[in-house]
Amino acid sequence: MAPHLADWRGRYVGSALAVVKPADTRQVAAVVRACAAANVPMVPQGGNTGLCGGATPLPDGRSVVINLSRMNRIRSVDAANNALIAEAGCTLAAVQQAADAENRLFPLSLASEGSCLVGGNLSTNAGGVQVLRYGNMRDLVLGVEVVLPDGRIWDGLRALRKDNTGYDLKQLFIGAEGTLGIVTAAVLKLFPRPRARATAWLAVPHPAVAVELLGFLRARCGERVTAFEIVGRAALELVLRHIPGARSPLAGDHGWCVLLELTDTLDAQALDAMLESAIAAALDTGLVTDTAIAASVAQAAALWALRENISEAQKIEGVSIKHDISVPVSRIPEFLERAHAELTAMWPGVRIVAFGHIGDGNLHYNLSKPDALDNAAFVSRTAEVNRVVHDLVASLQGSISAEHGLGQLKRDENARYKSDLELELMRAVKSAFDPRGLMNPGKVL
Amino acid sequence: MAPHLADWRGRYVGSALAVVKPADTRQVAAVVRACAAANVPMVPQGGNTGLCGGATPLPDGRSVVINLSRMNRIRSVDAANNALIAEAGCTLAAVQQAADAENRLFPLSLASEGSCLVGGNLSTNAGGVQVLRYGNMRDLVLGVEVVLPDGRIWDGLRALRKDNTGYDLKQLFIGAEGTLGIVTAAVLKLFPRPRARATAWLAVPHPAVAVELLGFLRARCGERVTAFEIVGRAALELVLRHIPGARSPLAGDHGWCVLLELTDTLDAQALDAMLESAIAAALDTGLVTDTAIAASVAQAAALWALRENISEAQKIEGVSIKHDISVPVSRIPEFLERAHAELTAMWPGVRIVAFGHIGDGNLHYNLSKPDALDNAAFVSRTAEVNRVVHDLVASLQGSISAEHGLGQLKRDENARYKSDLELELMRAVKSAFDPRGLMNPGKVL
Ligand SMILES: Cc1cc2nc3c(=O)[nH]c(=O)nc-3n(C[C@H](O)[C@H](O)[C@H](O)COP(=O)(O)OP(=O)(O)OC[C@H]3O[C@@H](n4cnc5c(N)ncnc54)[C@H](O)[C@@H]3O)c2cc1C
Ligand SMILES: Cc1cc2nc3c(=O)[nH]c(=O)nc-3n(C[C@H](O)[C@H](O)[C@H](O)COP(=O)(O)OP(=O)(O)OC[C@H]3O[C@@H](n4cnc5c(N)ncnc54)[C@H](O)[C@@H]3O)c2cc1C
Repeated sequence: MAPHLADWRGRYVGSALAVVKPADTRQVAAVVRACAAANVPMVPQGGNTGLCGGATPLPDGRSVVINLSRMNRIRSVDAANNALIAEAGCTLAAVQQAADAENRLFPLSLASEGSCLVGGNLSTNAGGVQVLRYGNMRDLVLGVEVVLPDGRIWDGLRALRKDNTGYDLKQLFIGAEGTLGIVTAAVLKLFPRPRARATAWLAVPHPAVAVELLGFLRARCGERVTAFEIVGRAALELVLRHIPGARSPLAGDHGWCVLLELTDTLDAQALDAMLESAIAAALDTGLVTDTAIAASVAQAAALWALRENISEAQKIEGVSIKHDISVPVSRIPEFLERAHAELTAMWPGVRIVAFGHIGDGNLHYNLSKPDALDNAAFVSRTAEVNRVVHDLVASLQGSISAEHGLGQLKRDENARYKSDLELELMRAVKSAFDPRGLMNPGKVL
Repeated sequence: MAPHLADWRGRYVGSALAVVKPADTRQVAAVVRACAAANVPMVPQGGNTGLCGGATPLPDGRSVVINLSRMNRIRSVDAANNALIAEAGCTLAAVQQAADAENRLFPLSLASEGSCLVGGNLSTNAGGVQVLRYGNMRDLVLGVEVVLPDGRIWDGLRALRKDNTGYDLKQLFIGAEGTLGIVTAAVLKLFPRPRARATAWLAVPHPAVAVELLGFLRARCGERVTAFEIVGRAALELVLRHIPGARSPLAGDHGWCVLLELTDTLDAQALDAMLESAIAAALDTGLVTDTAIAASVAQAAALWALRENISEAQKIEGVSIKHDISVPVSRIPEFLERAHAELTAMWPGVRIVAFGHIGDGNLHYNLSKPDALDNAAFVSRTAEVNRVVHDLVASLQGSISAEHGLGQLKRDENARYKSDLELELMRAVKSAFDPRGLMNPGKVL
């Protein structure tokens, strides 16, 4: 049972009566009925790649882990309707491949895509690098099939673009982190598959200019702007130091860089020309100070590797204190400035590793220890640091968990920042769907 | 009070204790508290353009109508965050203009946009002609402010692209038709404003080919495909007969036509070239049999007028029995074929006026009377016709109300087709938010 009782980061270790792996929806329903009859709490689990301990049972050992990985069929693909039905246990990569085979795109894209599962993506409302263009998982779901906490099966597998026949119940299960029921299948939206991709690494003088650049690019290139990721100097330095073969795309020292990707159904040449002329204009007006445009697929991959290896590099460097925050895009510069000032005043020498989906207002804002400090001393200040970062986020009307959810990790922190009224409404929903509190207790609420 | 007690079509006339027009959120809250204290039901009302009697009070005269039209401020526009905050009483047209003034697009577009209000759009999850590209109102809302049935104000006016801190409560209010609370303001998403627009009228040999054509165009042109509306022969004939100045864009007699619009941030020339080459290829392969491409803004407007005047022309022609249905896009041809066969067998001579948002799987499927029949005899068969159309929709896993909601009109019809389990879950949500049933009773549920 061990691999199912600890989370991906190894931060939570729980205990359970059993781990069950049902093979189809009826089996899930039978397991849930049995648990409900015996008053046993249930922990739904997908690929177990979540970052908040949501899929890890509590240490009390009272619950049963229901792992969906055996439910891994693509039930159907309807290319003309741009939709497919995937069971909860399909990996995200398998869904992407099924779409690709029909000359379609399923746009959700995460570093964990080889191991995270559709049910987990849906239950965490996962984000990733293409949200700017295609939205979060919530925007990619047309229908769901759910086993309710009493074992009844709700068939909400509608494949409709428009349906206004009452409350949109599926929305409650999306992002619920397994606290309202077990998702067993979903109807997912497909998109035209882009044929061209153009990628560039851009140095910008300041995060405020990065925000301006985003507006400039979207006005010119529209929804072609598929990814717009910011990388702070400290983040890039860690990658260059620890990841074999990583090389800076630009000469000189830049405080902030942006990884830009355009995609389109056009031919590649037209898109390359569009990228080049947009960047030339941005260089002219000082929105960009230096640039490297990928001239091949391999070069584009090398640019992406710089972005994608930041977490890995940070792990090699040592422990870090992480935040997954969002604010309105317009307030990113203010957030960065004020957080930097407050943290460095409070803690001279701390290194701020900031990067992420600036186009969505979402930053991974992590602290690495000043070299001198030992790990335990560093980590002991987590609560203090969280207070500074999260208070600032709250004052900017932001979110303390943009992508990753609450799980166990941020449950209490969330209770601190949400209004009492909103928490009350959340509890009312929980009671309406799971009056006995058997679904994933201790998570979210 | 009269204009507030009848619906737009004049099909429902209600009665009320009073019509109140609060000017701000606090006043709404005060009115709701007073009603709740006196146990008086409340009917939220926007522009009163809804087509299901949702904003019309019941005839029992027990309720108070709360009309939001005085709350018509755009509270703020944040262009860098691509968002604005509109009060519930702003017309949709005013929101479009506020976006336009900042060189942005608010894409919701309905024939009623001059009079319908944001709170009504949100509460009906309105659709329209650009859903294919931009989604329904649900997809365009980032946050809401709601006065709950007990008069408390929930401030959910977040302007974030990513936020995973618990259940996404705003989703419940979207499309709830005023049965869970009163929406007083919303954060709405803005988009890059297209600079080029290319419009064409295409004859297709069969609805199945229209669906194929849509796939072909999206593969080539991607999200540029902004509108893709089908118009059946009978619908076009009514417009040509009744609307002064209307002329058929094509010679000859075509069973089905499509109104296609591409938009882009590109220059107009490039988009025109893309449209022309796509249509040339479609003509080559027989997906399109004849075409008229708009050569000017005036010509494009004339093509759109053919589509937009169908309802008006049908009204002039006489009474009709209307349906607003959706099925998976891939099943539209089957729906049309089977519905036609069943209805003409049952009712020789009936005229089927079918048109709508085929790209969303959404058809307005209306019957006009055989000339011989008088109005009363025609209308008396409504229930019988609904049964045929809605049974077929249900068998194709479709929706009996794609865009317009349930209101009073389709409440019982919906109860017939939804599963008992789903109705039970809807009632559980209703009880959680409005335990005393004071918000818009008799609607939806
Ligand atoms: C290397 C790495 C990179 C990542 N990058 C991103 C990123 O860019 N963006 C992002 O948003 N996230 C990212 N994540 C975290 C992300 O949340 C997960 O990768 C993914 O969405 C979770 O899927 P999972 O199947 O592993 O879920 P799990 O970890 O198994 O579960 C997550 C939560 O969902 C619940 N759950 C799981 N399956 C079901 C079900 N069938 N029904 C009901 N509840 C269920 C669990 O109880 C738990 O609360 C990353 C994680 C890693 C390890
Ligand atoms: C000519 C015409 C064309 C149309 N075209 C389309 C179309 O293409 N697509 C489409 O989807 N619809 C269309 N509609 C119908 C559409 O539903 C409405 O135009 C619009 O969304 C309703 O807005 P309203 O302000 O008029 O709402 P109302 O009619 O006033 O109310 C509609 C419902 O919402 C509730 N409500 C209103 N305001 C609030 C609030 N602030 N808080 C809580 N509840 C509230 C009401 O109680 C009622 O149940 C059309 C209507 C007309 C007359």
